[in-house]
Amino acid sequence: MVRTGSAAGPTLAVVAREAGVSVPTASKVVNGREDVAPETRRRVTEALDRLGYVRRPRFDTVRPPGLVDLVVHSLDSSWSGAVLHGAEEAAHDAGLEVVVSAGLSRTRGGRPVRDWLDKLSARGSSGVLFHLAEPTPSQYAWLDQHRIPFVLIDPVLEPPPGVVSVGAANWHGGVTATEHLLSLGHERIAVVAGHRRRMCSNARLAGYRSALAAAGLRHRTEYVRYGGFDEVSAHRGMLELLDLPEPPTAVFVCSDRMALGAYRALAGRGVSVPDDVSVVGFDDLPGAHWASPPLTTVRQPLAEMAATATRLLVRMMAGERPEGIRTELSTRLVVRSSTAARRAGR
Amino acid sequence: MVRTGSAAGPTLAVVAREAGVSVPTASKVVNGREDVAPETRRRVTEALDRLGYVRRPRFDTVRPPGLVDLVVHSLDSSWSGAVLHGAEEAAHDAGLEVVVSAGLSRTRGGRPVRDWLDKLSARGSSGVLFHLAEPTPSQYAWLDQHRIPFVLIDPVLEPPPGVVSVGAANWHGGVTATEHLLSLGHERIAVVAGHRRRMCSNARLAGYRSALAAAGLRHRTEYVRYGGFDEVSAHRGMLELLDLPEPPTAVFVCSDRMALGAYRALAGRGVSVPDDVSVVGFDDLPGAHWASPPLTTVRQPLAEMAATATRLLVRMMAGERPEGIRTELSTRLVVRSSTAARRAGR
Repeated sequence: MVRTGSAAGPTLAVVAREAGVSVPTASKVVNGREDVAPETRRRVTEALDRLGYVRRPRFDTVRPPGLVDLVVHSLDSSWSGAVLHGAEEAAHDAGLEVVVSAGLSRTRGGRPVRDWLDKLSARGSSGVLFHLAEPTPSQYAWLDQHRIPFVLIDPVLEPPPGVVSVGAANWHGGVTATEHLLSLGHERIAVVAGHRRRMCSNARLAGYRSALAAAGLRHRTEYVRYGGFDEVSAHRGMLELLDLPEPPTAVFVCSDRMALGAYRALAGRGVSVPDDVSVVGFDDLPGAHWASPPLTTVRQPLAEMAATATRLLVRMMAGERPEGIRTELSTRLVVRSSTAARRAGR
Repeated sequence: MVRTGSAAGPTLAVVAREAGVSVPTASKVVNGREDVAPETRRRVTEALDRLGYVRRPRFDTVRPPGLVDLVVHSLDSSWSGAVLHGAEEAAHDAGLEVVVSAGLSRTRGGRPVRDWLDKLSARGSSGVLFHLAEPTPSQYAWLDQHRIPFVLIDPVLEPPPGVVSVGAANWHGGVTATEHLLSLGHERIAVVAGHRRRMCSNARLAGYRSALAAAGLRHRTEYVRYGGFDEVSAHRGMLELLDLPEPPTAVFVCSDRMALGAYRALAGRGVSVPDDVSVVGFDDLPGAHWASPPLTTVRQPLAEMAATATRLLVRMMAGERPEGIRTELSTRLVVRSSTAARRAGR
């Protein structure tokens, strides 16, 4: 483990001695000040080069950097870019900077080697944003006790009472997706939902049911399949729907990734999208645009969610209490080429 | 602009006075120490809640956090997730944390409002990683003068002498892509290259030429088109290739994003991939897997590049000089469904 504080290079005092100047003079050269004689500057620069001087950060002398922590489940996901983008921009506007941590505990040789809490305990933190990486009850208690404000972005599970979170209007997104299919004349509309225990999935599914009910269509339990937000389970769910005596003509699939699994199932059976079956996804990940046909989907404003969470956190760091506990940002239907009017006679 | 240092909430001294205890006692409660009487703890906790106390980070009393800066062109890109993932993991292994900045100067009301250099100047930095956001000559000079070590990840332009960088083996990737098409029996192999001035694009194009030359195929200038790493220019380049008297049966497109543009051009002309034309991309972005057919491409090990750059930076921060100036990590062909054997008679 290498720490900046224990770096092997020489100190500025050693450089100054080597150059035969005072430490303040060497410091002036390193800091680009003009009030140094050219010959002195040359001697110091040579000593810096010869000794391989590396600057050390001066956390004791400069103003606090004003850091907030962003703890994410994994940085290597399709979501992380947008979340980081939104958080970084809002933090920058508030004069703060963002330290990122992949919060997932990993194991090496059988034991967990990391936890975001280790870092926060060691360093302290002005405030923490969480994305898809939610504290355990004891971690919540720790944050609370240490009076470190935090905000959850798009929480997976229902947060404990009093915890501030920012999410997407999942229910409304489910309504929008289903209404779009209804407006195209579809009546046999199925859904492939995500995890049964995930808040966002349940809200999207409830939106689907509400839209069908509002249109006066009866709820058909055989049209509801559950997946795990992955392609494989969505592939299976889609095949089950195609095997029904009366298969659907349109499907709302509760994530873009799952829609890709549904696409593969449909292609495998020679069913054309959107001619035979219309498909709507949810998320608007970059991949939605790449899919063939490009996927009609419900856009989740991830960057805006992260920016809103950051602004709430900044206010909480200043001692304010937010008015609402849960903020929901609106979703938006992005119509591409995977949905079409129901064909006559179907 | 809100700064942690100027937060509006009460100090611990105010809380202690409110609770009728000493500051050290209030501090013990906030820091979860056990040696506080239950009644005292209750009084302090109530005061903390009543006054809305928010913890301030203690940068002057704790050990330096050991931060490195990662400056990226944009966080909202398909690349940022993998780069952050690799950098964060390697930094974590070295006991360091990563502060991310979108380095692009933005304008608001006509004037630029931000620059990564502003932050580094204000705070100092232990070391900086750059991805697709390269310093200008004066910024290079500033970093040099301040003896702040830095490493470029996948530099766009040829870096100045002595600057340490980590990239992908772009030339070899171009060779691999072209050899794959040759091995499938193709002889009329075209290329849609990226920016003429980009180092990575030129290296990939040179790899294509080397592989053709090694196979004894003559170089046909009409088979080389330049794009701008975007879909639109690749779409146009692909159409131009299809309009040739003797169109190619296989195309190496120098980025996945451009391959999507080529796909659209081919689909628009009713040309089937891979039956009529084979396509190889470059990058292996998440979208390559989403494309239809899934794209055969050359995988660029972005997370590994970022991790390698971080490890180099950590060594430079400790005063070591790296042996090599440019490190190239190997690329790897990922065969999916967009390439097939040349059809008889073509």
